[in-house]
Amino acid sequence: MITVALAKGALLKDTVARFSKAGLDFSAVLDQDNRQLMVPSRCGRARALLVRNGDVPVYVAYGQAQLGVVGFDVLREHQMPVAHLVNLGFGGCRMSVAVKKSSSYGCAADLPPHCRVASKFTNCAREFFDDLDLPVELVHLTGSVELGPITGMAEAIVDLVATGRTLRDNGLVAIEDLFQSTARLIGHPLSLRLDRGDLQSIVEAVRTDKKLNNLSL
Amino acid sequence: MITVALAKGALLKDTVARFSKAGLDFSAVLDQDNRQLMVPSRCGRARALLVRNGDVPVYVAYGQAQLGVVGFDVLREHQMPVAHLVNLGFGGCRMSVAVKKSSSYGCAADLPPHCRVASKFTNCAREFFDDLDLPVELVHLTGSVELGPITGMAEAIVDLVATGRTLRDNGLVAIEDLFQSTARLIGHPLSLRLDRGDLQSIVEAVRTDKKLNNLSL
Repeated sequence: MITVALAKGALLKDTVARFSKAGLDFSAVLDQDNRQLMVPSRCGRARALLVRNGDVPVYVAYGQAQLGVVGFDVLREHQMPVAHLVNLGFGGCRMSVAVKKSSSYGCAADLPPHCRVASKFTNCAREFFDDLDLPVELVHLTGSVELGPITGMAEAIVDLVATGRTLRDNGLVAIEDLFQSTARLIGHPLSLRLDRGDLQSIVEAVRTDKKLNNLSL
Repeated sequence: MITVALAKGALLKDTVARFSKAGLDFSAVLDQDNRQLMVPSRCGRARALLVRNGDVPVYVAYGQAQLGVVGFDVLREHQMPVAHLVNLGFGGCRMSVAVKKSSSYGCAADLPPHCRVASKFTNCAREFFDDLDLPVELVHLTGSVELGPITGMAEAIVDLVATGRTLRDNGLVAIEDLFQSTARLIGHPLSLRLDRGDLQSIVEAVRTDKKLNNLSL
């Protein structure tokens, strides 16, 4: 049976819709009352593994799921050995450097050397500031990163920005983008290599957004 | 003004009750409709910073909060430079090694060398297995660790166990404890050293579970 790791949260609805078009109905995971973490597709030929964002590439890298859907931001941050298969287009957002609106910084290079930058994505942030040749002290937070500048702990943050509402509500403004992120279909490299066609037909159906016909799962 | 970092989640209710007895009323953070992350105490002399579990020691270590309440498990895992002030007693749970009920492992030393162990607490797990002199491959997950053995990705998990219900529901059983955990009051070392009495009186009131009288905040 094919297992697909799906990220709980913002991407889930669009992910289920995309797989549904391809012929695999995982809509049971959207049920408010669903408490199961392993949910079979309606046809019974596949199952969804409902996990946290950051855990999707882990289950795929270890082959416990042959396929997975997760944001490019997570793939950039964790760098797991998985195959990037399809850019699904939805879940668009950008990884940005943001500062207090009242500050004088117009771009990341304006930040003072050795200032503090708070982020959930410290690997992405480190790479970015290394490329800029700007030494900063990274403070790893697990949530509500916007509190960094508000409390005075950090001069700037590196965080995902979708609508920009969270930044605005907290008096922050994005001054530079690291990269754009969208949802990606990823795969377990060895499973793809040993595949006898089933995985590839799901990947193709999801890629072309057309229903798969010849699934022999 | 004194800032107290409080962990969202399981410890919050007991933490608010304990501070309330000591004379600082943060009950506004328990309001379902509250969306603010910085909440003043009813008397206006202090404020609560409402953050994720793992972020409490960060805000206290950087001095953005002079005090904080968080589980001992988080303090063991992250090892931030904060002062451990009071064992608050509530929020009791244990960090345990758990395996499938159907497995033959009776204690951690029974696990096969180089097996996989999934955990959110990989630093605690590494230390434990190093002490045991048992080489294992740690798989870092951010949630639903019980899926590790269920999907076959890991032989065992290291996770917090409170009532044991999650383990039972997933066909797992704890075979060895790493340590016991309870909620702790922590402080920013420099703030404590520069304190002119106010911080110390809050710490004493929380420690002795008595109302503070002479707070001059």
